[in-house]
Amino acid sequence: MNNRPIGVFDSGLGGLTVLKAINKVLPNENVIYFGDTARVPYGPRSKETIIKYTFQAINFLISKNVKAIVIACNTATARSLKEANHKYDLPIIGVIEAGARTAAYSTKNKIVGVIGTQGTISSKAYNLEIGKIDKDIKIIDKACPLFVPIVEEGWANTDIAHLTAERYLQELKDQNIDSLVLGCTHYPLLKRTIGEFVGTEIKLVNPAKETALDLKKILEEKDLLRESGDSQSIYEYYVSDIPEKFASIAQEFLKQEIRDIKQVEIYKY
Amino acid sequence: MNNRPIGVFDSGLGGLTVLKAINKVLPNENVIYFGDTARVPYGPRSKETIIKYTFQAINFLISKNVKAIVIACNTATARSLKEANHKYDLPIIGVIEAGARTAAYSTKNKIVGVIGTQGTISSKAYNLEIGKIDKDIKIIDKACPLFVPIVEEGWANTDIAHLTAERYLQELKDQNIDSLVLGCTHYPLLKRTIGEFVGTEIKLVNPAKETALDLKKILEEKDLLRESGDSQSIYEYYVSDIPEKFASIAQEFLKQEIRDIKQVEIYKY
Repeated sequence: MNNRPIGVFDSGLGGLTVLKAINKVLPNENVIYFGDTARVPYGPRSKETIIKYTFQAINFLISKNVKAIVIACNTATARSLKEANHKYDLPIIGVIEAGARTAAYSTKNKIVGVIGTQGTISSKAYNLEIGKIDKDIKIIDKACPLFVPIVEEGWANTDIAHLTAERYLQELKDQNIDSLVLGCTHYPLLKRTIGEFVGTEIKLVNPAKETALDLKKILEEKDLLRESGDSQSIYEYYVSDIPEKFASIAQEFLKQEIRDIKQVEIYKY
Repeated sequence: MNNRPIGVFDSGLGGLTVLKAINKVLPNENVIYFGDTARVPYGPRSKETIIKYTFQAINFLISKNVKAIVIACNTATARSLKEANHKYDLPIIGVIEAGARTAAYSTKNKIVGVIGTQGTISSKAYNLEIGKIDKDIKIIDKACPLFVPIVEEGWANTDIAHLTAERYLQELKDQNIDSLVLGCTHYPLLKRTIGEFVGTEIKLVNPAKETALDLKKILEEKDLLRESGDSQSIYEYYVSDIPEKFASIAQEFLKQEIRDIKQVEIYKY
């Protein structure tokens, strides 16, 4: 057993959808969340820059004595998970393996759609992971850079969101995908809009839940679960820009108030 | 006379619209452009973070021996121009004073609209500058965070851009503005879409041209113009993320190819 916290890292707010899933699956665990709000979004940045930012986030979380880390950001997972596991000893998992596995097992016609930021899509990380499970699965992928700002503007259910979904997703629909991976942690907030456009026959895959289950399994295997019966679990939030704005949008994601968010000078780590 | 280059700084690409205006007004000058592409966009960031990023950019440009600096970014001007002029000795100008002056002299009914990023609008910098010229001018301002990603997606003339313009600008039109300041250096690329929605009776004010004229005046006053008859002017481009992506979008802005873009580790300055 191990009562140290789990570290959850995202480029900004999106990782809160993963944090929510972790809370459901592992309600007893303490969690430290770090959102790199001074440098969000990671989507359009280069691999080199993303690796540097990810290592700084991991160094910060290690300084907080975490026992395991979830990179709750598709772009950071795609660009830097391998490098992070090479450099650090503690368990570090991303969101892509779990999402890829879910998609590979849910598709029937073996045509899977993957959407994400430019960084995630360029990395071909989902293609690689899905290919490891079943190399006959055909993948149609598409970068959707406008989805994140639409969610952050609170426009997830507007005509603009619908038109944007249509413009991005028509070609995936035309190519007969039967599963669509929401390969960015912001996208679950667009689930209704995307679902209305693609229809009920296409299954929407949200990697967050599977990632939380993977985390649970790893903690069990390594005997790192927190002792049950201990005091209530504690959630701490850190961001690299000032906390005020984070607090207000975070409520959209978590559907609950979060308090006591602290600022970190992340470039020093 | 002074043959040292002019420094132009922006959070990313938008400042190229200002660089283009400088090239028209001062074709003889050498220019060093720095775009902070590893940390773009500045719009949603805090004042403290933006000041830090701006000072690093200025330190870098000073290391390149510039004789004057243009902060070609509305957000950085709004948040950090005063602090920069307090800290540094060389001439540093922003884009807001010139834009405010143009708007103040162009309005007839004394109702001016101002649009920009969240950072620029929250700062009330345009309100302050316009108020200095004529305190009776009423200002209707509005943050338009989706405009920048729409431009960068190459969707400036789509139905999505039109709907977004309508959603942001209807209230400004309803309040009878007769001038509209394009308070973000990306927005001139949306001029047609915005113009089609607001109609020809509302004058669109692009601060870039006036900023270039201000710069010329300052260089003349301080006897800092480059000697004419010297060799052809040189333009150098630096960015903080990898240069490849910058090159391709920059062509959209400048309508010409740019080569030899170099990368800077800006956080070291």
